[in-house]
Amino acid sequence: MTASDSPAVGPDTSPEDWSKGLIITVRSPDRVGIVASLAAAIQSAGGNIIELDQHTDVVEGDFGCRIEVAGGVDAEVLARGLDELRASLSANYTMTPIARRQSRVVVLCSSTLHCPSDLIARSAIGQLDCDVVALVSDQTAARELAQRYGVPFTHLPIGDDRAEQERRLGEVLDELAPDLIVLARYMRVLPAWLVDRYEHRIINIHHSFLPAFVGSNPYARAHTRGVKIIGATAHYVTADLDAGPIIAQDVVHISHRDDVADMTRRGADIERSVLASAIRLHLEQRVIVFGARTCVFD
Amino acid sequence: MTASDSPAVGPDTSPEDWSKGLIITVRSPDRVGIVASLAAAIQSAGGNIIELDQHTDVVEGDFGCRIEVAGGVDAEVLARGLDELRASLSANYTMTPIARRQSRVVVLCSSTLHCPSDLIARSAIGQLDCDVVALVSDQTAARELAQRYGVPFTHLPIGDDRAEQERRLGEVLDELAPDLIVLARYMRVLPAWLVDRYEHRIINIHHSFLPAFVGSNPYARAHTRGVKIIGATAHYVTADLDAGPIIAQDVVHISHRDDVADMTRRGADIERSVLASAIRLHLEQRVIVFGARTCVFD
Amino acid sequence: MTASDSPAVGPDTSPEDWSKGLIITVRSPDRVGIVASLAAAIQSAGGNIIELDQHTDVVEGDFGCRIEVAGGVDAEVLARGLDELRASLSANYTMTPIARRQSRVVVLCSSTLHCPSDLIARSAIGQLDCDVVALVSDQTAARELAQRYGVPFTHLPIGDDRAEQERRLGEVLDELAPDLIVLARYMRVLPAWLVDRYEHRIINIHHSFLPAFVGSNPYARAHTRGVKIIGATAHYVTADLDAGPIIAQDVVHISHRDDVADMTRRGADIERSVLASAIRLHLEQRVIVFGARTCVFD
Amino acid sequence: MTASDSPAVGPDTSPEDWSKGLIITVRSPDRVGIVASLAAAIQSAGGNIIELDQHTDVVEGDFGCRIEVAGGVDAEVLARGLDELRASLSANYTMTPIARRQSRVVVLCSSTLHCPSDLIARSAIGQLDCDVVALVSDQTAARELAQRYGVPFTHLPIGDDRAEQERRLGEVLDELAPDLIVLARYMRVLPAWLVDRYEHRIINIHHSFLPAFVGSNPYARAHTRGVKIIGATAHYVTADLDAGPIIAQDVVHISHRDDVADMTRRGADIERSVLASAIRLHLEQRVIVFGARTCVFD
Repeated sequence: MTASDSPAVGPDTSPEDWSKGLIITVRSPDRVGIVASLAAAIQSAGGNIIELDQHTDVVEGDFGCRIEVAGGVDAEVLARGLDELRASLSANYTMTPIARRQSRVVVLCSSTLHCPSDLIARSAIGQLDCDVVALVSDQTAARELAQRYGVPFTHLPIGDDRAEQERRLGEVLDELAPDLIVLARYMRVLPAWLVDRYEHRIINIHHSFLPAFVGSNPYARAHTRGVKIIGATAHYVTADLDAGPIIAQDVVHISHRDDVADMTRRGADIERSVLASAIRLHLEQRVIVFGARTCVFD
Repeated sequence: MTASDSPAVGPDTSPEDWSKGLIITVRSPDRVGIVASLAAAIQSAGGNIIELDQHTDVVEGDFGCRIEVAGGVDAEVLARGLDELRASLSANYTMTPIARRQSRVVVLCSSTLHCPSDLIARSAIGQLDCDVVALVSDQTAARELAQRYGVPFTHLPIGDDRAEQERRLGEVLDELAPDLIVLARYMRVLPAWLVDRYEHRIINIHHSFLPAFVGSNPYARAHTRGVKIIGATAHYVTADLDAGPIIAQDVVHISHRDDVADMTRRGADIERSVLASAIRLHLEQRVIVFGARTCVFD
Repeated sequence: MTASDSPAVGPDTSPEDWSKGLIITVRSPDRVGIVASLAAAIQSAGGNIIELDQHTDVVEGDFGCRIEVAGGVDAEVLARGLDELRASLSANYTMTPIARRQSRVVVLCSSTLHCPSDLIARSAIGQLDCDVVALVSDQTAARELAQRYGVPFTHLPIGDDRAEQERRLGEVLDELAPDLIVLARYMRVLPAWLVDRYEHRIINIHHSFLPAFVGSNPYARAHTRGVKIIGATAHYVTADLDAGPIIAQDVVHISHRDDVADMTRRGADIERSVLASAIRLHLEQRVIVFGARTCVFD
Repeated sequence: MTASDSPAVGPDTSPEDWSKGLIITVRSPDRVGIVASLAAAIQSAGGNIIELDQHTDVVEGDFGCRIEVAGGVDAEVLARGLDELRASLSANYTMTPIARRQSRVVVLCSSTLHCPSDLIARSAIGQLDCDVVALVSDQTAARELAQRYGVPFTHLPIGDDRAEQERRLGEVLDELAPDLIVLARYMRVLPAWLVDRYEHRIINIHHSFLPAFVGSNPYARAHTRGVKIIGATAHYVTADLDAGPIIAQDVVHISHRDDVADMTRRGADIERSVLASAIRLHLEQRVIVFGARTCVFD
């Protein structure tokens, strides 16, 4: 086992506070006895399981599990126990304190502001359990929003040299050491090397119920087609545009009275709520990726 | 004006009963004064408008309107008034008594029975305001269902000569003189001449939220893509498969625990309710087609 | 542990078929190590856990758990293991084969037929995994429905002696030996002794989103109040009317155009789907009752 | 007719801009010919109706109507025409330019900030078509929010003399001359004289799907009852607490895993969207009050 896929450790080097309990996630090839081994390790550390949600994809042979353990567990003993299971189970695991420091989130956007505005406002009143540590944009429209909330704003315009902008974006992100990067209507495709570097740590919001209306201008195309629902999709970013593992989707009913502007307005509400929901699920360690799909233990 | 698009007159030749009031629908090119002309004609016939729902597509210049008039109107005077408006407005109109005879519905299906079963059961207990006058199928699976409810069953297998089956289907339908034909998971594409003959009087249920998963096996493809919602779409049938004007759509949330069989089961519930809803909207004259889109006055 | 709360054993005395795997549910006071003990017992019997869903109510100290074990487990060894845990954990458990015989469901109704009609039609086409073994009613309206599907119909009219009708209802039910009794718009309150006899095995559908509009005529009262949503609630029946543990609820949006008749029609669709959903959840052993609330492991 | 119920005229005395078209709403006792008279008056002023939505409550005899007229209409002629209909129809009407100045909205809140935060953030990015001209509170928690957005903040603490605070609140509101007052989780009941002064111009958000959980602590009570949905209700404020005409409602599904804190968080999302939706409907003149109920022409 390695704690590699969603590391709970950031630049903050203060010791973790395990007193409120912890969350374990495990992903491994399926075999008989994984739950028994995990539960025994937790019991040995004096831990009481208060939520356990486990799923096996019997076709692919993938095992995924999320466990909440109440406070009072000996985290050091537990970590040793889980490490001992590592080789035998070929498993990835994460172990995160419930009383963890705030996750560091970087928001990328362009000129459409309802998603970044919503995320920052939620964070400011404690309705999204993270710190928005920076707003990064290829445009300047979000600067005022950032200033209102005292969030650092970085403007990375795309000039003649796109690769150069991407290189600088990579540097900026590395310095920020984010737990999560959110593409909140950022209208640029990220380069593959950047996507790889932050695998399963970049969430994008797409303004349609994928796989309908992949690509640009989904509302205009939805209007032309005469659909009666529109939606939004939050997914992890992969090299293949709009094809990453879906975390959350939702829709809203529309009518013939809704023109493209109305659909854009109504859709904005769904985009905001789906994106905020996906971020919460990710931050609470509720999402485990099985290939092109996700398990969401909600 | 002509009463051509959704004729309220079937093989039953008894005089209409206008005593409970009537529904008028109008579709025409937009111009100033249409509502005033219609309302004046209704007032002249002593009619009291109790619901009026009107929409103009200002881009395309299409005018659509649905009006409910309370009992007490002089239907003959009203019909004359509407006829006088015909040439000046280049309009299509329908005028349907609220106390109309039951609409005649023919259901086509193959081997998947939840939709035909639901429609026939609803009709039998008065929850769908129509008579299912026949069940027609290229398979035999629905025969028992038809027998339970005393609905005539016609088996039209597809043998070596597909065109011959289609010709016979056309004959069967012409004899049945349906107000509406419902493709309730009928797994065959209808020939263009048959679609044209019953323009805007054939409703199909597709088991996805179109335009996602056009074509066959939508649930299997939805599972592969890892979507978090599945849906269903009821639309008028046109020559272009799965591209006809959409009447109703709905979705249901799913999770990683739902395999293709679960999605098929959950989707079946949505298919049934969306199809029944679209049929009701059509039968109550609530749907007006504007090119590739519908106005649904619900 | 005892297998008392949702016995999987009915009048059919043929040996269980465990080859397709099995479902275990456990309800007990919370303590450290329950999952470890269960998982160890399953592993000892050669069982592979493919779904595990566990919840602890930390306020009340209740532990609940549902486990799916793949085929290949030695059911006899497993049952012995679970029995050994009985005294130490003070737990109730059930163990049900996935390839179980069809559950026996008795449907009680009065004159409103959309729920019994839907349940019987679903069962007939294999969309609800049970046998409707009888339709029992204080009215005669459902007789034709029962006959269409060859389901035995028992008419138990309420004459001068209500207690006598209830006594006979008790006899009829005892003879039928149902796994589940469904009140599908049955307009009578069951006596306490009958409710007690079938604790957590009687499901009622109430035509409002409880606790709004407890009691009679919810749609009329919803119309008077001018609500914009109506709903339905499926719950286990307890001695306290409309206060039993809720299994499933859903709503539908309405508008000012919907009068009481429209609300009744729209509500009927929600009632049917919520009731069918609750029955499925119950039959798949997905519902565990914690006092006045349910855990639904879906 | 009088333009009394939702005056479009505020302290801004600049002439109205009718060039983009206008919206007419009419509420009157029902009689034959109202639509004809209205449509004739609009036609006489050269107006083209592009949306008309009309409803008659046939039980109560109430007529309500919302009409959108395209640009190019002679507003002065139209106003004269409507005034001429006043006596004969005993109607109330409003006539509002589509290109109107921003509506003035005053937000009242206490210490729960997700609703005021959301409204101000939406307004700032142009997603709610109004100016939040002041934030008024009996607490100080919202001061920082107001400052971020440069919105004037008025603190009106409730000391020993509640009537005095209410008197001052009345003065503050009168000076602000709001088109709409929003109670965004303001935890005080307004005095009857204040409610009367702003009849149908005060919107409250209640954190339950009324009429369930009228009064305080709805989420705690919802948890105790074990409901599977929670919701929110936006309504006009009347003297009778939580009984005003409902404008919008919505719900979200919850599970046994959601404790009161989770329900509060999930409910907050619904509160925000329902409140924003109700405000938009009000500002777009889409709500007509019929006694204790609303017509919402959406």
